[in-house]
This record gives sequence, C-alpha cells and structure tokens, in this order.
Amino acid sequence: MENFIFQNPTKLVFGKGQIAKLSELIPTNVNLMITFGGGSVKRNDVYRQVVEALDGREFIEFWGIEANPHVETLRKAIALGKEEKIDFLLAVGGGSVLDGTKLIAAGIAMEDEAWDIVLKGYAKKQIPFASVLTVPATGSEMNGGSVISRAETNEKFAFFGNNPQFSILDPEVCYTLSEHQVACGLSDAFTHVLEQYITTTGQSRLMDRWAEGILQSVVEIAPLLKKDPKNYDLNADYMLCATLALNDMIRMGITQDWTTHMIGHELTALHGTTHGHSLAIVMPAAMSVLRRQKNEKLLQYGERVFGITEGSENERVQKAIEATETFYRSLGLTTRLSEEGIGDETIEMITKRFNERGVAFGEKGNVTGDVAREILMACK
Amino acid sequence: MENFIFQNPTKLVFGKGQIAKLSELIPTNVNLMITFGGGSVKRNDVYRQVVEALDGREFIEFWGIEANPHVETLRKAIALGKEEKIDFLLAVGGGSVLDGTKLIAAGIAMEDEAWDIVLKGYAKKQIPFASVLTVPATGSEMNGGSVISRAETNEKFAFFGNNPQFSILDPEVCYTLSEHQVACGLSDAFTHVLEQYITTTGQSRLMDRWAEGILQSVVEIAPLLKKDPKNYDLNADYMLCATLALNDMIRMGITQDWTTHMIGHELTALHGTTHGHSLAIVMPAAMSVLRRQKNEKLLQYGERVFGITEGSENERVQKAIEATETFYRSLGLTTRLSEEGIGDETIEMITKRFNERGVAFGEKGNVTGDVAREILMACK
Repeated sequence: MENFIFQNPTKLVFGKGQIAKLSELIPTNVNLMITFGGGSVKRNDVYRQVVEALDGREFIEFWGIEANPHVETLRKAIALGKEEKIDFLLAVGGGSVLDGTKLIAAGIAMEDEAWDIVLKGYAKKQIPFASVLTVPATGSEMNGGSVISRAETNEKFAFFGNNPQFSILDPEVCYTLSEHQVACGLSDAFTHVLEQYITTTGQSRLMDRWAEGILQSVVEIAPLLKKDPKNYDLNADYMLCATLALNDMIRMGITQDWTTHMIGHELTALHGTTHGHSLAIVMPAAMSVLRRQKNEKLLQYGERVFGITEGSENERVQKAIEATETFYRSLGLTTRLSEEGIGDETIEMITKRFNERGVAFGEKGNVTGDVAREILMACK
Repeated sequence: MENFIFQNPTKLVFGKGQIAKLSELIPTNVNLMITFGGGSVKRNDVYRQVVEALDGREFIEFWGIEANPHVETLRKAIALGKEEKIDFLLAVGGGSVLDGTKLIAAGIAMEDEAWDIVLKGYAKKQIPFASVLTVPATGSEMNGGSVISRAETNEKFAFFGNNPQFSILDPEVCYTLSEHQVACGLSDAFTHVLEQYITTTGQSRLMDRWAEGILQSVVEIAPLLKKDPKNYDLNADYMLCATLALNDMIRMGITQDWTTHMIGHELTALHGTTHGHSLAIVMPAAMSVLRRQKNEKLLQYGERVFGITEGSENERVQKAIEATETFYRSLGLTTRLSEEGIGDETIEMITKRFNERGVAFGEKGNVTGDVAREILMACK
C-alpha cells in the first residue's frame, strides 16, 4: 500500500425532507447566492423546498449554468458575486451546477481570470460553498474536483479545490429524472469506480472490496431502478453509490488510472456527449487496449462483479470486458462512436490534442496520444 | 434506508515514516501536552520518532494512561493540563491512550467533573487533540467515541465528543505488537463491524458490502499476519480495516446493535478482560440467543463472509455462528467464560446491573438484563 492522506470534511445530509435543514446549515450573516441550472428544479419541487427552507433570509439567484458548465457563463456569475459581495454559495442542481459553483467560488475569492484557474489545475482560495444535489452522478457533492468547459475552443479540463461544506442528498429528487439521466448517472458512478479499481492488483484488499461493493450494487440496482424509478430505497442506494464512488473513500493508498475520463472529456468537449455516456463508450475499449497491463485485475473484476470463473485467462478477461459493455448497453446507452455519428476526424483531433499536450495518462503514464488513438479506434 | 448525517473531519495520515510530519500537523503556538501509556513506545521507537519530529518545540509529557483508562488517572492529567494551560493534546499510543486523551480534552475545556462527563454520555466542549496510533483495534483514531473505566466501582461507560484533528497511522508500529495484542485488535475490528452489520437486512446494499469487505479482509489477513507479523502490506490492511471498522463509513443510513459491546464492557470492568477478547467471548453467544431476530442477516453473513451455502436455513445459521467462534479461536483467543475462570457470580452481577439501569440494548431495544443473562449463560 502507498502512503496517503485522507480527509473529507463535507457534511453529508442524506434522506427524505432534509432540504428543510438548509436554514440551520447555512451560516447566518452571510451574503448568499444560490446557483441553478436551466430550471428543472422548478419542475421537480426542489426550488420550492429551498425557498421555503430559507424563508425570511435574503439571497440572490444566478440561473443558467449549463451541462458541462461553460467558463463563459461562470464569468458572469463571478462578476455578479463580486459586485454583490457574495461570501457563501449554494449550488442547487446536478454535477454541472456544482462544478460550475466551485469555479465561481474560486473566481470570487481571487483576482485570477476564471479560465486561468482551470488551466492551473487548482484553486488557491475559494469562498465557502455547499449544495443541494438533484442528479446523482459526478460525486462533486463530496469532493474537491470540478470539470469546466470553454465553449469558444471546445476544451474541457478539471481543477481541484475545497470540498462543499455540506451537501443535502434527498433520494426523492431522483423520481423526476429521465431514464437517460439515470443511465448516465449510473454509468458515471460505475466508471468512477473502475478508474480507481482496474489497476494493479494486491495494493489493498479492503479498497478492492469497497470498490467491488459499489460496482456490485450498481449492477444490482440498475435493472430494478429501470422498472421501478420511484422506489425510495433503490434511489437511496443509487445516490449513495454515486457519492461514495468519488469521495476518496475507495482510493486510500492505491494507484489510479483515469484514462477513460481523459478521452471521454474530449468527446464531450468536441461533440457535447453527456459525460456518463462518453465513459460508457470509452471504458470497454480502454480495457481492451490495456488488457495485458490490467490482466490480473480484469480477472478479479470479472469474477467478483460478474461471476466469471469459466474458461482460460484470456477468455475470462474477454468475458469481463464484454460484460462491461453489455452492462453499459443495458442502461440504455450506446457504446460505439459510430452509433453517435462520431468518426475518424474526431479520433485524429483527439490524438493530435493529446500529442500536442505531450502528457501521457493512465496508471503507468503510458497512455500517449497514440494509445488514446488505439482506444478510440477500438470503440469505433 | 434511514435518514443520516455523515461527517468525519479527521485527517488520516497513513504510511511509513509519517510520524515525521508531526511538526507541520500540530499548529504552532499551542501549549502541547503529549499523553502516553506505560512505556511501550520507548521500546518500539515511536517515542524517539515523535521527539525527533518535534525537535525545537516545547511540550510536556503525561505518562501512565493504563489499558481501559481509569478516570482516576485521567483526573491527574486534567489537573496538570489546566495548571499548564494546555490547549492541544497529542495521544501517542493505542485506543486506551486515545480514549483517555479524549476525556482529558473535555476535562481541560470544561469545569465539569470528569466522571460526570462520562455519565452524561457526551462532551459539550473539548480542546483540540490528535494522535499517533500504535495499536490498531478500537477505531478511536477516527471517531468521537471514548470508553472510560472507574476503578473504584468497576464501571465502564462510553461518552462521545469531537474527533481527533488528525491521526498518524504507520503500519510499521505494528511490528512489535504481541500476538495477543494483534488477536485482540483483529477481534475488536471484526466485532465492531458485526455490531453494525448483523442487523435487519435490506437497509443498504452498499453498506452491507462495505461491512462484508472489512470482515472478508480481516478473515483473510488474520492467518497470514500470524505467520508473517512484520509484513508491511498485511499490517497496512490490518490497520486500515481497524480504522474503517468504526469511523461511521459503514453505517450510513442503517440500524446498529452493540449488544456484545454492552456486555463485553462489563466483563472488562469486572475482570479486566482485554476489550477485544471480551467481544470474542460474547459475540457468538449473542448471535445464538438472537438468532431468530437476526436470521436473514446471519444467512447473508455466512454465505458472503464464510462461503456457507449448503444445508437448511437453520443449519446454515448454525454454521455461520460456529464459523464466527472458530474465527475468534483461530486468532488465539478463548471464547468461553469458563476458560477465563468467570463464573455464575459474574453473570448474576451483570444481570443485576443491566436490570438496575433499566435500559434495554440492541437493535430492537429488547436486550434486557434477562436477555443479557441468557447470552452470558450461552458462552459459559
């Protein structure tokens, strides 16, 4: 096991009716701005609950943070926040609203230009922020990461900073999600775990099992949720899986990969593919191309998550990769670039971008532009 | 799933050589007192590492916190701490030193008498404290609980308060633990998980699997550690299992039991039985007596942790209980009161104490003095 430091100070406030606790959770005497997406919270009753919980308190609202939040939009929120001397942000929405709010928090706290903060990779300072989560997927509600897009150049990069002070997770907000949203959310959670798990074996028995525990749970609840989308306990499991998939609890002392995310982000940046969907396309191909390096873990994964015990090592690895693709398809997602009308031009563009940046990704630092190209060719 | 709030702010600093980070972890300008047990840290090199890491900083030392820390000892530390205007405590030792330090932290911060704080069950205020852990077992390094004994009345109770600000866990400190210490540590960790897991089924797929992940890992590493007690990775797994067994991560949104601990504490209070050992004696009997209530979970536990799939439900439950006792014995611990020379007098005394307190324990609140008696009779 590698040395590590784990600290996750976010207060997770989980369950039915917990939005009503907002007033006691947000410090008094702060200048509060609430950030929103496109308006779904008005249709699903969350906006009403938030406003009711904050009855008697003053706040301003910023609307319009889009999916894969654009720095161009967030700059407006930063300017408004500075003007209004905002010192506490509440994100009400999904991972995009949360990620965007993390950049707003940094932009208000610092003089640096917003995109420069993203390019630097971390925020030195942020004003405090918290969230009411409405779409379980990214894990942003309990980590310090944020992924921001720049529309004018079709770029998408991550930066890191503070965690939300608290996040309210009410599984009932999932009742109004579309089947595609749930599919992308489950895919996102599942893939987050794979990025931290399909690596070198034998680093930590316990972290392996905690990762497998999320994978097994997601595989189990996915078909049940499809049939019964308003089942409270299924949504609670879904929500908890998504949060714990990316809050550092399953990566204590172990290596990570993130190849699929690096390539998936490019698909989103260039084609607007939903994040969780882009991962479903890339992950099985990444497994195939890196199968020798990941042989042992793929065998363990196949056996423990999908019960694959028959056949030669090669056959079992092949079955594990196929089971992964089948799982993503069972969610209702396509898993091939061609199904999304994405062709060679994009593959060449991504290869070029990776090569130009001159950084290789993955657990072993061996995923160069050319390896990325191989992966993209494998999911054509 | 039940509503819950999860927040664990402790910074876990894990790995080889991490004690050297003490100086940057402890705030400057604090009046520091370091608390110790009986001196094992001088034999295992931890004391030297701590002193070296704090080179150039002033601190006072308090020695002599015993196993199952006595309020009588801790009062002296509180008096010293108040006199010296101590405002930061560093516990260097096992769970007992840590638990004792939590009461010292409360006693210094408040005017209340130390035992009154314990009896109240929680500390309203504590000065900040942190730890260098030397015996993985209790989980005290990453939670707010503390169990204190009162020698003059042979009583032992828990109280709750803040978490350590940070805890340093270097698996190399385990190399000098005795086989009995490791056995009790593994038993403690294993039983902590069972108390949070052998309850009603179907509350959370994920929490079940995270609990099972610790149980499976402990069962796997126990015999390996016995053969190879200076294996770094095995000790790292052991240490991580013990911490994550009782830091709230496996009990989000689920019910808990703690029957075995309530009875085990009495055995320790009356006979000085090591905590982890007392649990090994009580747990299999508690499972037997409450087997109808816990039938479903015992079946799941037997299958997922010990691979028990053959036989009728009754037979499988019986096998799961036997496998539990066999596991404790495999650690080198006895599992019967008679083996420890504990007889009927103690059983009657514990029954009387439970009945006098008039509180029933367990997940369903049905473990009265008479049920405790039944459990004790079953582990004679």
